[in-house]
Amino acid sequence: MTDTLSSQSPDELSINTIRTLSIDAIDKANSGHPGAAMALAPLTLKMWQDYLRYDPADPHWPNRDRFVLSAGHASMLIYSMIHLAGVKRVDHDGNITDTPAISLEDVKDFRQLDSVTPGHPESHLTTGVETTTGPLGQGVATSVGMAVAGLWKRAEYGEEIFDYDVYTICGDGDMMEGVSHEAASLAGHQKLHNLLWVYDSNRITIDGSTDLAFTEDVEARFLAYGWNVHHINDANDLDEIGAALDKFKAEKEKPTFILIHSHIGYGSPNKVDTADVHGNPLGADETILTKETYGWPTDAHFLVPDGVYENFQSGIGKRGAELNAAWKERFEVAGDEVKSAAKVMLAGDLPDGWDADIPSFEAGAEIATRSASQKTLNAIAPKVSWMLSGSADLTGSASSGLTPDVSGVFEPGNRSGHGIHLGVREHESAAMSNGMALSHLRPIWSTYLIFSDYARPAIRLSALDGSPSSTGLPMIRSAWAKTDPPTSRSNSSRRSGPSPSST
Amino acid sequence: MTDTLSSQSPDELSINTIRTLSIDAIDKANSGHPGAAMALAPLTLKMWQDYLRYDPADPHWPNRDRFVLSAGHASMLIYSMIHLAGVKRVDHDGNITDTPAISLEDVKDFRQLDSVTPGHPESHLTTGVETTTGPLGQGVATSVGMAVAGLWKRAEYGEEIFDYDVYTICGDGDMMEGVSHEAASLAGHQKLHNLLWVYDSNRITIDGSTDLAFTEDVEARFLAYGWNVHHINDANDLDEIGAALDKFKAEKEKPTFILIHSHIGYGSPNKVDTADVHGNPLGADETILTKETYGWPTDAHFLVPDGVYENFQSGIGKRGAELNAAWKERFEVAGDEVKSAAKVMLAGDLPDGWDADIPSFEAGAEIATRSASQKTLNAIAPKVSWMLSGSADLTGSASSGLTPDVSGVFEPGNRSGHGIHLGVREHESAAMSNGMALSHLRPIWSTYLIFSDYARPAIRLSALDGSPSSTGLPMIRSAWAKTDPPTSRSNSSRRSGPSPSST
Repeated sequence: MTDTLSSQSPDELSINTIRTLSIDAIDKANSGHPGAAMALAPLTLKMWQDYLRYDPADPHWPNRDRFVLSAGHASMLIYSMIHLAGVKRVDHDGNITDTPAISLEDVKDFRQLDSVTPGHPESHLTTGVETTTGPLGQGVATSVGMAVAGLWKRAEYGEEIFDYDVYTICGDGDMMEGVSHEAASLAGHQKLHNLLWVYDSNRITIDGSTDLAFTEDVEARFLAYGWNVHHINDANDLDEIGAALDKFKAEKEKPTFILIHSHIGYGSPNKVDTADVHGNPLGADETILTKETYGWPTDAHFLVPDGVYENFQSGIGKRGAELNAAWKERFEVAGDEVKSAAKVMLAGDLPDGWDADIPSFEAGAEIATRSASQKTLNAIAPKVSWMLSGSADLTGSASSGLTPDVSGVFEPGNRSGHGIHLGVREHESAAMSNGMALSHLRPIWSTYLIFSDYARPAIRLSALDGSPSSTGLPMIRSAWAKTDPPTSRSNSSRRSGPSPSST
Repeated sequence: MTDTLSSQSPDELSINTIRTLSIDAIDKANSGHPGAAMALAPLTLKMWQDYLRYDPADPHWPNRDRFVLSAGHASMLIYSMIHLAGVKRVDHDGNITDTPAISLEDVKDFRQLDSVTPGHPESHLTTGVETTTGPLGQGVATSVGMAVAGLWKRAEYGEEIFDYDVYTICGDGDMMEGVSHEAASLAGHQKLHNLLWVYDSNRITIDGSTDLAFTEDVEARFLAYGWNVHHINDANDLDEIGAALDKFKAEKEKPTFILIHSHIGYGSPNKVDTADVHGNPLGADETILTKETYGWPTDAHFLVPDGVYENFQSGIGKRGAELNAAWKERFEVAGDEVKSAAKVMLAGDLPDGWDADIPSFEAGAEIATRSASQKTLNAIAPKVSWMLSGSADLTGSASSGLTPDVSGVFEPGNRSGHGIHLGVREHESAAMSNGMALSHLRPIWSTYLIFSDYARPAIRLSALDGSPSSTGLPMIRSAWAKTDPPTSRSNSSRRSGPSPSST
């Protein structure tokens, strides 16, 4: 097959660039998961170009839609997207830099030590990665917390300022993990209409066909959870993909689940639809055959043809910049109270006087630590509206509930408040807290210590990425709303404890 | 209301005895969960008296149906049943004793240190408790392994010898935990028609109504998993309960899910259908009012009226003894090969020469430990048919697969073999292994070490109850098939490793 680049449309070129960058990076690293990136390139192209409200020049824009790749092993898919969309790197102080979040060199460094393109996406390493994924089920579980945070902010600060959505891509492994059940059940209960999960149904896992171990009717299961369920029959049909995403955008009542029938390793003549292409490099020979299928030069590596960067720039780049600019205008005319409150929240800071009413307890006082904790939380809550406290069905026992006078309950009929009912779902409680923390809320969740075993995979992720849901680290900093780092103040208060004079 | 004991039928007396023993024990301990025991007494009475194939005089009868109380907090329900059915205690050497598994004094010792009636059922402490439960979701998850073991034994030794079923009772908390999804999805895929889950839908959890956090359509979800789904509208209607259990007994294709609509704290005029009766003692005043509702003497405590023990004896006692005797006759006429193989398996022993072909590896040999492990397993597998090895979708990567010449795969069309596909379900993999180990199989499951985080609650339970799925402890001993304890032989081999001379 000859080089047919000149006959390919900008979108076709872009799709095949996503695919071949992924293939080449994984071949070079001699490790990785090419199959899903090859299959889902049309989906992510359509999603980012026409739907995702994201400004590559301002990656921490507070009202950006969140994109979560729960199938984190397909990391080259998101790395290719971040690279081609021209996302700028945000440094550790929260400043937007002129460095690309992921340069072409970074793509070539895939899976190398200290690169920004590790084997699985890590949000503290790579701008544009909203949450660390890889351990299956974690991305979908975290996305629920992001969606809760979105609706909470929408209610608190107004929908002119916050109306973002959460776009999630997941796979068979996510659907099999128990935490996906907890997450989906809770999201359906909470009617999180700003939440989308696209389920990549390629019917292949590491061991082989899903027929070996996974034959449930996933769509029926999500209907049982109270989700809207749609599907895409042809993963290469941009119009069909768009029509399904339109249904999500039009949805105002329930979370949306879209099953996309895909072919893992699409384009590889010998490995399409096989487990071999799930987690192994294509290899030199098959890469040549695959590039022939794509009408791609077989001797080129890491090729980004003319017009591809421009296609992204005229798509998500232009659309994102316009949306961001219009949003900034809306934010400027918002009331001062809303603006200053939102800025403190987004900066990961605490308002002046947040600790003014914290009670003190005499040494030796007979009070359960959980009760002292509850009294302290109740003293802080009126000052920090974005503190959201839930429990895995032990609100009273674990003393995590906030008293009614300062608390409301976040639920479908009320998106404000300091409380949320999580049900007997420890794993989702932790993952959801990660999603809320990554979205600048201050989550609190509780259970008995021994049941934290149920939540360990999510607790581990928050330790890795530094989200403050379990580590006590300061908030992810935002370039958009800069104030003095809260580290010193909040940490010193925490370390020394409230002094008697502060009560 | 006056004492109406004389007007109550033996079944009514028995039901109210289960209820009041539970109430009195929890009141005395001033701690516990009376609500479900009060609600489900008719269900367990009907189940044990007319369905459960269990011989109270021979609690380790190999072909007994297994009863699992996944809602382990309702422990007084199973303790009352074990007491009233007259289950005999089996000592630590596997001998049946003349001591009751749970005496009336033991009931009065509920939740006391070193009693056989701890707050939640623990299988290593109490005869009649088949698996340790309490952490929600664990019982249902374990029951799947028990059902797999049942079908495996049925195929291996013949259905005249093994045809037992697994009866499980679970609640809202079990249904919310993620592991219930993994377990139900795998059970549906595996078409475990010998498995029953009765879901106690009382719509109450500790935080209050399930409307707070749990509104999925549970029945629709189980249909999506490929289960048969039935329901019982009136938890007090023994005929309706029996009709639903008949449907399970007639089922030959799929696992069965029965939703029973119940009233938590049934009989308590002020606390029925409230969260207060879930996890708190009724208290003296409400206990009096409740006993009046039951037509029970209000000044009696731990009362077992005349005729109640006899009712159980003429029900499960007589039926179980007859079933056991008939089974023993069938076992005696089984072939010698089957008999001796089954006896070794049931004794938790290993066959002579099980380690004859274990390879040795030179110090410093370049072989991955997982590969050495796999070679060793493959050398043992031909000798130990009841070794079942599965992986959470990492069969190849974790080298847990057994080579085709010694292995078959346990699946709906083939209930033999050494292999089973578990899917991306680490938590269920561990819990299922517990269920298999408690059923005398030798389970092996594998994943990458970090993903063991997903499985910790089940790993913890196997450490508590000593099932050998994770601890390496010897098998639960059976009174029925006694041989020399395998401890010394297998442990010493394990400790010193195979010597070169043993190859």
